[in-house]
Amino acid sequence: MTPPRFDILGIGNAIVDILAEVEEGFLGAQSMIKGSMELIDAGRTDALYALMPPAVQTSGGSVANTAAVAGQMGARAAFIGVVAGDEFGAIFRHDIRGSGVHHPTPPSTGGDPTARCLILVTPDGQRTMNTFLGVSSSLAPHHLDHALIADSAISYLEGFLFYVPDSAAASRRAAEIAHAAGRRVAISLSDFLCVERNLDAFQTMVRDHVDILFANEKELAALTGLEDFEEAADVVRGQVEIAALTRGEHGSVIFRGEERFDVAPVQAKVVDTTGAGDAYAAGFMTALTAGRDLPTCGRWASRAAAETISRMGARPPGDLSYLRG
Amino acid sequence: MTPPRFDILGIGNAIVDILAEVEEGFLGAQSMIKGSMELIDAGRTDALYALMPPAVQTSGGSVANTAAVAGQMGARAAFIGVVAGDEFGAIFRHDIRGSGVHHPTPPSTGGDPTARCLILVTPDGQRTMNTFLGVSSSLAPHHLDHALIADSAISYLEGFLFYVPDSAAASRRAAEIAHAAGRRVAISLSDFLCVERNLDAFQTMVRDHVDILFANEKELAALTGLEDFEEAADVVRGQVEIAALTRGEHGSVIFRGEERFDVAPVQAKVVDTTGAGDAYAAGFMTALTAGRDLPTCGRWASRAAAETISRMGARPPGDLSYLRG
Repeated sequence: MTPPRFDILGIGNAIVDILAEVEEGFLGAQSMIKGSMELIDAGRTDALYALMPPAVQTSGGSVANTAAVAGQMGARAAFIGVVAGDEFGAIFRHDIRGSGVHHPTPPSTGGDPTARCLILVTPDGQRTMNTFLGVSSSLAPHHLDHALIADSAISYLEGFLFYVPDSAAASRRAAEIAHAAGRRVAISLSDFLCVERNLDAFQTMVRDHVDILFANEKELAALTGLEDFEEAADVVRGQVEIAALTRGEHGSVIFRGEERFDVAPVQAKVVDTTGAGDAYAAGFMTALTAGRDLPTCGRWASRAAAETISRMGARPPGDLSYLRG
Repeated sequence: MTPPRFDILGIGNAIVDILAEVEEGFLGAQSMIKGSMELIDAGRTDALYALMPPAVQTSGGSVANTAAVAGQMGARAAFIGVVAGDEFGAIFRHDIRGSGVHHPTPPSTGGDPTARCLILVTPDGQRTMNTFLGVSSSLAPHHLDHALIADSAISYLEGFLFYVPDSAAASRRAAEIAHAAGRRVAISLSDFLCVERNLDAFQTMVRDHVDILFANEKELAALTGLEDFEEAADVVRGQVEIAALTRGEHGSVIFRGEERFDVAPVQAKVVDTTGAGDAYAAGFMTALTAGRDLPTCGRWASRAAAETISRMGARPPGDLSYLRG
């Protein structure tokens, strides 16, 4: 097998984040579940945006964030995801390329705008997300560059793709292509509501197609139906090669077969948790594809997550190679 | 004379800022003068943007920033300035309204896009600006709402308007309308290069139309041709009712006729100086229109400036009434 040209190929939604700080009461008044992600339509997007305080716009998207942070940490990263030919699309394309990420997907010429995520950051640093997928939801098997997938050590997917049938089909197809080329497939479960609502698809995907699983405690419980972390972890460690399970301020646990590594969290003042899980996955896979052992993967992951939550937005700026080590 | 409905009416360019952190060498390689503002065309905008690292998008515009911060501090603020019906225009309109600022100018239906300013922030916190004015440069006397000007205690203008003949004409016309209604006119000189390049227009404007002058040391030197601060200050104190002259880390000095007040700077860790002068003017005029004395005006101004330079972007988020006092 020839060495891959890329370490990490992300396949996911291409989104621009619109972040604003709000009080706790804002979430309740809008019937939002703190820490979750809901899909919203164009009308709801306009209505909610009108209610939001002045905001900051940055590139986002869960897998795209991971690709960007990995690129900034020095991994050879690529990303497949669809934007429109509008101003938000230009922002997304500029930023992901500026992070050193190869992004070959051409802008769509259709009528839907680039995806946007309205993110409400509460004083405790938690983020609650409302996503209008726009043209990003057109991601389908025909967008997959087979040669690129075959040339990437890890194809990395996001659970959010399972909200859209064509995008879910693209996820499964990408996994098949990767495995046929002898490469690995990783996935983040993304969000517990997303897992609950697409449970069969998630369970089948993890059992049949995933080598490396990223999940937090709530997502793991949703996937397995088990509230107890140890019991739930026992289920998935039998299904995937590596499970990296995050536990918020308690750090994370990495399982590989009979091996278990408990990873201490890296302390950080919580400003905005947007992108913490994305950065964790970036650090982890950057170390893994650099040939590091699992405790090192966990450490790079935790350092990347800590850097991300200590500031607004999902992608810390600049060269992030200092997070290696 | 009836009490005005608004404290501060800003008239200026409506801009979205695109901010990125760069090393010092970036400025030299692009032949930029640190701390200055240059107008650039659409082609140069695309070329420069392509060279910039991943960025953050926020609402900007010098006078617009002042109106927003004043609104967040509790002043009754309004703003006249032109955006397009594009995504950047939507960002600008959303944010200025979210700061409590009345913005009656309808989006243009012409072909030019909303203005954008590419801002390079160096490790010393200095910002260097490259502005593509787009549709904002269409600001002309016909955009002036005479009743609104007559109903505002202070009409506040920016020197940047003098780069565009129609916008300069709008500035002079706004001043005439304000004075005919018995109101005051304030201006920020904006940028020393702008003053140097439009010197006659600036000198005439300040001498004939301005009641309240905001300038930093370099702008003051450009206006008067005098390098010595005290000599230059002596010139303008004879021309305007109030001169608020900022001196960077040395604080500021306020002159009114024979009165002089030296204002100590408020200490802050410098992250990004974008908007520091805008916030100073906001704090100053918020206090002035609230009937406070000049030392208090200087204090609110310095507090607002310090808050702004301690973070990325020109407008600190949320309720800024804590800056009063």
